[in-house]
Amino acid sequence: MTTFPSTNVEDVRTLVADRQLAELRAMLAFWPEPEVADLLMELNPTEQMVVFRLLPRQISSEVFTHLDTDQQNELLTQLNSEETRHLLANLSPDDRTQLFEELPGQATQKLLNLLGPEDLREARQLLGYPEESVGRLMTPDYVAVRPTWTIAQALHHIRTRGRDSETINTIYVTDTRWRFLDAIDLRRFIMAEPEQTVEQIMDRAYIVLSAFDDREQAVRALRRYDLASLPVVDSDGVLVGIVTFDDLIDVADEETTEDFHKSAAVAPLRASYSETGIGELVMKRAPWLIVLVFVNIFSGAIIAAFEETIAAVVALVFFLPLLIASSGNAGSQSATLMVRAMAMGDIKMSDWARSLRKEVLVSALLGISMAVAVWLVAFFRTGSEVALVVSLTMIIIVIVGSLIGTVLPFILSRFGMDPATASGPLITSLSDIAGVLIYFSLATWLLGIL
Amino acid sequence: MTTFPSTNVEDVRTLVADRQLAELRAMLAFWPEPEVADLLMELNPTEQMVVFRLLPRQISSEVFTHLDTDQQNELLTQLNSEETRHLLANLSPDDRTQLFEELPGQATQKLLNLLGPEDLREARQLLGYPEESVGRLMTPDYVAVRPTWTIAQALHHIRTRGRDSETINTIYVTDTRWRFLDAIDLRRFIMAEPEQTVEQIMDRAYIVLSAFDDREQAVRALRRYDLASLPVVDSDGVLVGIVTFDDLIDVADEETTEDFHKSAAVAPLRASYSETGIGELVMKRAPWLIVLVFVNIFSGAIIAAFEETIAAVVALVFFLPLLIASSGNAGSQSATLMVRAMAMGDIKMSDWARSLRKEVLVSALLGISMAVAVWLVAFFRTGSEVALVVSLTMIIIVIVGSLIGTVLPFILSRFGMDPATASGPLITSLSDIAGVLIYFSLATWLLGIL
Repeated sequence: MTTFPSTNVEDVRTLVADRQLAELRAMLAFWPEPEVADLLMELNPTEQMVVFRLLPRQISSEVFTHLDTDQQNELLTQLNSEETRHLLANLSPDDRTQLFEELPGQATQKLLNLLGPEDLREARQLLGYPEESVGRLMTPDYVAVRPTWTIAQALHHIRTRGRDSETINTIYVTDTRWRFLDAIDLRRFIMAEPEQTVEQIMDRAYIVLSAFDDREQAVRALRRYDLASLPVVDSDGVLVGIVTFDDLIDVADEETTEDFHKSAAVAPLRASYSETGIGELVMKRAPWLIVLVFVNIFSGAIIAAFEETIAAVVALVFFLPLLIASSGNAGSQSATLMVRAMAMGDIKMSDWARSLRKEVLVSALLGISMAVAVWLVAFFRTGSEVALVVSLTMIIIVIVGSLIGTVLPFILSRFGMDPATASGPLITSLSDIAGVLIYFSLATWLLGIL
Repeated sequence: MTTFPSTNVEDVRTLVADRQLAELRAMLAFWPEPEVADLLMELNPTEQMVVFRLLPRQISSEVFTHLDTDQQNELLTQLNSEETRHLLANLSPDDRTQLFEELPGQATQKLLNLLGPEDLREARQLLGYPEESVGRLMTPDYVAVRPTWTIAQALHHIRTRGRDSETINTIYVTDTRWRFLDAIDLRRFIMAEPEQTVEQIMDRAYIVLSAFDDREQAVRALRRYDLASLPVVDSDGVLVGIVTFDDLIDVADEETTEDFHKSAAVAPLRASYSETGIGELVMKRAPWLIVLVFVNIFSGAIIAAFEETIAAVVALVFFLPLLIASSGNAGSQSATLMVRAMAMGDIKMSDWARSLRKEVLVSALLGISMAVAVWLVAFFRTGSEVALVVSLTMIIIVIVGSLIGTVLPFILSRFGMDPATASGPLITSLSDIAGVLIYFSLATWLLGIL
């Protein structure tokens, strides 16, 4: 991949200090916006403002969207009203919505006051859609044509309107009341004869989203239909905007990060890890950990009930961490396989029985191989009786752990919860309880009859 | 989102059985390809062939790319050579490479024999790039123009060549030896005056990939630069193909699935969960589980060393599962936060010290709140001495678990390994060992002096 003038911050600093602004401007002209944003984040506030003000307006707005929220907020406090007004005007409506969503309420209100009446109406409308809905992601900047127009008329319209629209790769057809009729590749316009009508090249093969759909549905549509942009309609079928693949990729990444965090019992963070403070991290991690302390009390109570067996054969305790860890590990594997396969649409709710059969078979084979490994260890350390108990327990609890890991995501999903909540820690705790009960019951019984 | 004629398989079956093929064809004409693929996968092989043969050739190839590999392989065995030849000819080169990669070697060889000389040369070239490289993902079907052409000439060329190319939304500029010069939005051609030259609208602002780059680099470029397609050059700078966002999204999903699986100590699967057999699942899951059995033996050995302490105060065992689970849980949280932040480029290797400081602070606060919870339980169950040992241990092992979880991804990454290998099970095992050692050492010492 081409790497850019290895963002040499020191060079930029020197140019700023020496006020060689023409050189600096020339140098930055060839940098892609994400690189300029990275550069800005390494500069001090004064240098930042010098560089930011040097950028052409269209570019500076684009660079702004690549900054972290904290940096955006800080930069906004340094711009005067006139500059802020220009910055906002040059942001695309979807980037504007995102900014308003992420900034603190007061900052958002201040910005809204700087918008022109047209942009304000638009911002209010976009912010009016539910959080995490498609409406919040879309931009109203698309090009629409009428079915009765000729291709030549349509192309003329595209040429005049295209500059301000997010994409012209797909052209939308609406009726005179802006109701959505079709989505057509620009390619078809280019290939068609100028005197044909739009109606003649319409194929009415389209995928359309509602502004009230959950944004995850938009991501699913992107994955499935490979479209770079999707039209969005309101409840009357009026074309209110489009969502583009780049915004949907960001949403998909956010959702995946949430799933990863849930898999370790971390509640979704509002920002990236590096932007999240100590306080929020504790608040997002403590609840489940503390719940799991109380869940784990059951395993303690079960052990207490078997105090006599343990006092008689202390060697049983040697294998306790190993056994419950193995059960939890096998369970985490099953849960992770299920959760990810469900997220990717590979398995559905109706596949629960098939998945269960598969996991029971797999975990039985895993349990047997782990039992052989642990039998070898236990036999030489503690003799044949404990070795038998430990290896039999291993087989059973690996299967039980897998069962818990397999079934839990389906149960959660059945009750309308996110299957990703079937986290490693939750499964570990549940299989700990089951494991302790199985181990000491089996030990008490077997050692009693052997 | 629009839902499609709720894929009523029974209706299709009836139409096939009644040989009402004209109706069936008309019905399927409006279905998107992924829906037709889903339908096919629900039919029996005979019905499948009837429906597949009804589809227009262009459509059937597209539908074919949406089938699972098993289904593709089965369908290919039923097509005659003539049909297979047409199917292959209608696949885009990147879809063809993917098919050859995924089919068993023998099947691939049979297909290669059916290709025309031109397609065969192309397939051999694409398969010649390293596995998981950008070369394997790209398609040579792009539209290129020369800098000296006028816009009118270029548009004429786009019109004639565009039908067979993967995208015309970006037009590539090359010299007469096909060396890459620039990537230009089709929009700029549409907006420009017909008599301008291509040179005049070039801005030389582009991102370019090498065919030998790892495909993950292409995904990072997609995330960073929001481009729907990226040009790919060979070592001489010759434009050999383009990669498009839809293929990169598939790659990103695969990589994420691998990371998820690694986080639960499952080695990467070759296909989706539902396509993976029992044997492969066992082979991908057993190695780590068995390694972890042997790692866990250390915790057993440590417990054995403290046999006297345990025999004296059996109540200590009650809290063993809870304490080691808590340490493992906190460690999994830290590791998951690190691994995901590293994958998203949020934190880099150089951020290790900052992350460590943050995690120590967070885990100290978590440890204290969990210590309070467990103290309450222990005090009423076993009295103040054990309660003190248990809650002190809790604070220390939660911090230690978090330290392990934070540091391990950085260490793995430092030695060129995937940080995602710092899985929950691995961290659980390591923090089990540390936890057992800390718990019983502290207990022996404190109960000795109290």
